[in-house]
Amino acid sequence: MKFDLSVRGMRDYYPDIFSQLNYIIRAWKETALAYGFEEFDGPVLETLELYKIKSGEEIVNQLYNFTDKGGRELALRPELTPTLARMVSKVQNQVSKPMKWFSIPRCMRYEKPQKGRLREFFQFNVDILGEEGEMADLEIISVAIDCLLKLGLSKADFVVKINNRDFAAEYFIENGIIKGNTHALYKVIDNARKVKKELTRPAINELGFSVKQEDAIENYLSLSNSSDLAKLSISNTGKESLLDLFSLINNAGLQDYCEFDPTIVRGLDYYTGTVFEIFDRSEKMRAICGGGRYNNLLKEFSGVDLPACGFGMGDVVLGEILSDKGMFPVYQKQVDYFLVRVTDNELELMLRIARSLRSRGLTVEYTYKSLPVKKQMSKASKIPAKKVLIFGADEIARGKLVEKDLSTGEEIEVPVDSLF
Amino acid sequence: MKFDLSVRGMRDYYPDIFSQLNYIIRAWKETALAYGFEEFDGPVLETLELYKIKSGEEIVNQLYNFTDKGGRELALRPELTPTLARMVSKVQNQVSKPMKWFSIPRCMRYEKPQKGRLREFFQFNVDILGEEGEMADLEIISVAIDCLLKLGLSKADFVVKINNRDFAAEYFIENGIIKGNTHALYKVIDNARKVKKELTRPAINELGFSVKQEDAIENYLSLSNSSDLAKLSISNTGKESLLDLFSLINNAGLQDYCEFDPTIVRGLDYYTGTVFEIFDRSEKMRAICGGGRYNNLLKEFSGVDLPACGFGMGDVVLGEILSDKGMFPVYQKQVDYFLVRVTDNELELMLRIARSLRSRGLTVEYTYKSLPVKKQMSKASKIPAKKVLIFGADEIARGKLVEKDLSTGEEIEVPVDSLF
Repeated sequence: MKFDLSVRGMRDYYPDIFSQLNYIIRAWKETALAYGFEEFDGPVLETLELYKIKSGEEIVNQLYNFTDKGGRELALRPELTPTLARMVSKVQNQVSKPMKWFSIPRCMRYEKPQKGRLREFFQFNVDILGEEGEMADLEIISVAIDCLLKLGLSKADFVVKINNRDFAAEYFIENGIIKGNTHALYKVIDNARKVKKELTRPAINELGFSVKQEDAIENYLSLSNSSDLAKLSISNTGKESLLDLFSLINNAGLQDYCEFDPTIVRGLDYYTGTVFEIFDRSEKMRAICGGGRYNNLLKEFSGVDLPACGFGMGDVVLGEILSDKGMFPVYQKQVDYFLVRVTDNELELMLRIARSLRSRGLTVEYTYKSLPVKKQMSKASKIPAKKVLIFGADEIARGKLVEKDLSTGEEIEVPVDSLF
Repeated sequence: MKFDLSVRGMRDYYPDIFSQLNYIIRAWKETALAYGFEEFDGPVLETLELYKIKSGEEIVNQLYNFTDKGGRELALRPELTPTLARMVSKVQNQVSKPMKWFSIPRCMRYEKPQKGRLREFFQFNVDILGEEGEMADLEIISVAIDCLLKLGLSKADFVVKINNRDFAAEYFIENGIIKGNTHALYKVIDNARKVKKELTRPAINELGFSVKQEDAIENYLSLSNSSDLAKLSISNTGKESLLDLFSLINNAGLQDYCEFDPTIVRGLDYYTGTVFEIFDRSEKMRAICGGGRYNNLLKEFSGVDLPACGFGMGDVVLGEILSDKGMFPVYQKQVDYFLVRVTDNELELMLRIARSLRSRGLTVEYTYKSLPVKKQMSKASKIPAKKVLIFGADEIARGKLVEKDLSTGEEIEVPVDSLF
């Protein structure tokens, strides 16, 4: 290429990189399937309108949008939830509830590329639709944990931080902190996790609350685990839901992966109950995953009143963590058999046996050019193939081939018939 | 949804549709891997420039292109070959040849949606780079055939029509039909396959050749198999290459799937030797697959002189054929175990055994709500799950669970310990 035609923030998935992506995707998929979720997908292109419903005009700055040749205002999907809402609204009368759906969409966002953030990424989406209650929330959290375990991570590597939007909202209402301030307040609360403790009070101060209200906010932020929560003298539905969820988390044996964290409020306004984010324990990275309950969102999109919970987990932050920890399997092309022909008289038999072994799911290669046996053998060793099958006229006359195991050097004869 | 926000020509892949797509993709992937190809991918967004290199300005009408917020002229990829060329040019010095790469890119084209053509599709791309010769061409054709066989199609369903661009070009040069006319001529030739025989001569006539030249063109079109080809008194490298390829096709046992067809010339100008297209035998559809050798293309893109051959096979035409023939497996959610709890006292054990079975790759479900056993059993039958595990206090006290096989109705007791 005379000049580099790559697009900023986009990845080229060469075979070694692709195998890492595939490693993540396989773990996602296998976990979701084990939990009984069904896979779906939507198109990469949606109408711009679809994203404005949920996020208003400001979303437009963060996505790739354009007018197509037919005058349609389109956008490359930055996330899957609006597509899910659109699709569900068409079929929700026909399918039994709860719907358990997952997807691994390719998404694009027009955002500044940086550590943990690229302009194209894959995002594991897992959602339960049409089910209220903490058992469904637990299931969602359990899927997220189990796919991280499947990828080789452990409780020393990550933590699920859980809160409840109703609990937060009800707490602040009870303490006379009006609803109108929620957005700015939640920003300070979310930030409290990321900044030094002494910086939070001045930030709260700027919100213009009374000292008593400020104390209540500080008191909220000092809640550090679910026993603190249980001890809280106030009673609200969000708190009860959180305690029920933590009880289920204990039941499922997931307590070592989960903790209550009052700073988790999830910026997006559509969450209604349980909210959670997963972080690497060092918290050097953005969240690995974020999710929760969004009981009103589908109604907003489609008029369909369907409680829902789910999460999104991208491949970029997760990939960096796995890479930093050296947890990706080393990429190695797998070849079961390398076929070596002594002369081209054996070509026909070789080609037919190749197709036969391949149809059994074995990976088979050979050189396309006619080369000396030694050169063919050295190609086989270079890959390395597991076994070499040598097509020599003398053995073939006896109905046999020599099979050499390249790891042990052992040679045996195998009947030609057994290879068809 | 108050109004339908779907984008024209795009598909929503609901779980049943997704399973069909997945059925095709799995066959593609397994076949390519069995042949020793390595998977890669590029981004969906590329620079518009990249597509103009190969196809000039006219390509712009057929693709989704736009200027991004940073002023970059971008396009959604309509095909993978330019991306392949771009990626290969960066690494071709470091990797051993031949490179055997495959990909299943999601592509978008701004074309009129119709039977066999949508604006978003998946395309199986298989390429061998850095290898001359008919053995590589055979390998590519063999991959295409074997994935169709894996999908359940047979020689009664499809045929690979093969030609050679050098043969055609050399034939027409030898017969004094100048090169400048190639494009219009090839269009008539390609069309000869699709129209009634009596319509071809007038079309040839319009090209402005002499009667002798017209006869030569008709003579070319009358070649109907490889023995006709062998009998041709002229000798040219394309003809020899075709005969060699057909000899290899016989060697590999693929003669029933392949035939020589002089009308296959592949519209795109970059093909150099072997060209082929695969059709359903009824020829009611567009080509299932098209490919061939393109020895000069990579040089044009990157200055790298690398002979290459490959094909592209989309999911849309193929999906319609499989659908018409009723060859897609019926979509059925697979659940290995449905867990039934007699009371919520057994919830903890149930949740833990669920995670344990799931970590073994088994699909496990249960109701989120606490329901009477009868209702839980009826949910299990409705899916239907293969087996039900019943969590009852009495059996658990003896360290056992009742396991019921829903297909036979047989009940056995299994030790709780065996499930961890």
